[in-house]
Amino acid sequence: MIKIITTIHEMKGIIKSKKAQGKTVGFVPTMGYLHEGHTSLVKWAKEENDIVVVSIFVNPTQFGVNEDYDVYPRDLERDQMLSEEAGAEYIFHPTVAEMYPNGYQTYVEVFGITDKLCGASRPGHFRGVTTVVNKLFQIVAPHRAYFGLKDAQQVAVIEKMVRELNMDVEIVPCPIVREADGLAMSSRNVNLSPIDRQSALILSQSLMKAKEMIQAGNVEAKEIQRAIENKIAEESAVAVDYIKIVDFTNLEEIDVIKGRVLIALAAKVGNVRLIDNIIMEA
Amino acid sequence: MIKIITTIHEMKGIIKSKKAQGKTVGFVPTMGYLHEGHTSLVKWAKEENDIVVVSIFVNPTQFGVNEDYDVYPRDLERDQMLSEEAGAEYIFHPTVAEMYPNGYQTYVEVFGITDKLCGASRPGHFRGVTTVVNKLFQIVAPHRAYFGLKDAQQVAVIEKMVRELNMDVEIVPCPIVREADGLAMSSRNVNLSPIDRQSALILSQSLMKAKEMIQAGNVEAKEIQRAIENKIAEESAVAVDYIKIVDFTNLEEIDVIKGRVLIALAAKVGNVRLIDNIIMEA
Repeated sequence: MIKIITTIHEMKGIIKSKKAQGKTVGFVPTMGYLHEGHTSLVKWAKEENDIVVVSIFVNPTQFGVNEDYDVYPRDLERDQMLSEEAGAEYIFHPTVAEMYPNGYQTYVEVFGITDKLCGASRPGHFRGVTTVVNKLFQIVAPHRAYFGLKDAQQVAVIEKMVRELNMDVEIVPCPIVREADGLAMSSRNVNLSPIDRQSALILSQSLMKAKEMIQAGNVEAKEIQRAIENKIAEESAVAVDYIKIVDFTNLEEIDVIKGRVLIALAAKVGNVRLIDNIIMEA
Repeated sequence: MIKIITTIHEMKGIIKSKKAQGKTVGFVPTMGYLHEGHTSLVKWAKEENDIVVVSIFVNPTQFGVNEDYDVYPRDLERDQMLSEEAGAEYIFHPTVAEMYPNGYQTYVEVFGITDKLCGASRPGHFRGVTTVVNKLFQIVAPHRAYFGLKDAQQVAVIEKMVRELNMDVEIVPCPIVREADGLAMSSRNVNLSPIDRQSALILSQSLMKAKEMIQAGNVEAKEIQRAIENKIAEESAVAVDYIKIVDFTNLEEIDVIKGRVLIALAAKVGNVRLIDNIIMEA
C-alpha cells in the first residue's frame, strides 16, 4: 500500500532509514493529475531503484500572476492509485505552507538559458522550478530523478542547476508519451474543449512534418521553422507563442541542423497553453 | 599529515568513503589567510566530529567590482600548517575554474535580510556567499559547519538558506576571537598600516561601551547607537559605514533593547573595510 507523506521531517526520516538499509531511491517530481507520461517515469524509476517516491505539489512559485495556478487540475486519490499501480512506494504531498513557510525568501536561479523559449514568455517560471526542485532534492535526496522530455527546457535547466551546484543526483530524461492521435500527454489537456483538443493535434503534426524534412536531408533551420509555422496556420484556433530550433545543450538558436537539436514550440489553444517538441540527432 | 584536495571529484570521493565508515564530518569554510578566529572554528569542529575539512577559496562572486578581491591576502603554506595544528585532516582548495567553470550561471539568493547591514553597502555580496556555501555544502556534505560570529549577518543568512532549502547540515555559530587589545581578528587586518591599526581599536571599544550601557540598564537603542557614534568620532581616521542595533533573528532595527540583539558596525579605516559586533541577550 502506497503511503502519503505530508511533512518534510517525516519524508527525510523515511529516506534516511531506507538509505541506511542500502536501498537506492528514485524520484519523480510532479504537480499531480498524473497521466501516462508521469506513470512512464515511475516505471522507469522503479526499474532502476529499490524505492520510488513521487512528489505531488502544485508549486505556486512557478506560476505567473495571470497563469493557471488556481485552475490547475488536482485529483490526489486518482494520483495515489496510478502511482501505486506504476510501482511507487511513497507520495510526498506537502502543503504550500510546509514548503514555503511564512517569511520564505530563498531562491535558486539559473540565468541565461532560462530567458529563452518558455522562459521568455513566463518570467520567473524557471526560478520557481529550480527552487522547488532544489528543495525536493534536499528532502528526498534521491540517487536518480526522472523528468519527461516534454518540458525539454526544464530538463536542460535542471541538469545545469545540478551540475553547477555540484548536487549528487543523476537526472534521467525520459521520452515524451503521446496519445494515440499524437497529442503530447499533459495534465493541462483536460482543460481543452473537445473542438480545441482536435485543433491541438496540429502541434504534433507540424513537428512530425519537420522530422520528415530533416530525415529527407533538409538542414536549413529557417525552412523547417517556416514549414512548422505554415502547418500550424492551418488551424485558426491555435495561437503560436514560439517555434524555435535550438542546440539542446545551450538552447541557442541555430541556422543549420547539426548535432543534438531541439525543435520546440508553445501555443495557446483556447485558454490552454500547450508545449511540444522533438529532439533530433543529426 | 593534512592533505590538500583541489578537485570536487576527489573531495566528494573522500567524504563518501569516510561516511561509509560511519565517520562524522565537520566543515570550516574560509577564504584562507587563517587567524585564530579560524583556528578556533577548526578546534570546535574537531571536538564535535571525526573528520574536519577546511576549505580555502577566495570566492570571486562575493566581491564587488571595486572591492579587494585582488589584494585579499593569500598564504596557502601557512594556512596548511595552521589547519593541521588545529586538527583538520583535509584542505579543500579548488581553483576558480573548478568552482565556476566557463558558462557558469546558477546562483542561490536569500532576499530580504541580505539588503540590510553589509548587504546594503555590498550589493551582490551575499548572493556570492550563499552560492559558494551552497556549492561547498554539496561537495563536502558535512554534518556540521562552523562560522564565526564576526560575520553575524552571514551566519543569519546562511542559517536561513539552510532552513529554507531544507539542507541537512547543522550550522554552528562560534564566538568572535579578538586580539589582546580588543581588535576583532580578520584576515584583512594585515592590510592596516600601524597607525590605522591603532585607530581601529575604537571599533571594539565603542561596542564595549554599548555593552556597559546595556548592562547598566539602558534599553534605548537610539541612545546606545549615538554613544557608539560619538565614541568612534574620536578617531578621525575611521569612516563609519553603518552602526545598527537589530533583532538577531530577522535583522530588523529595533527601538528597545530586548531579546537577542545584534549591535553591528562597519567602517573604513584607511583603505580597509572592517566589521565588528556584539550580540547581547536582554
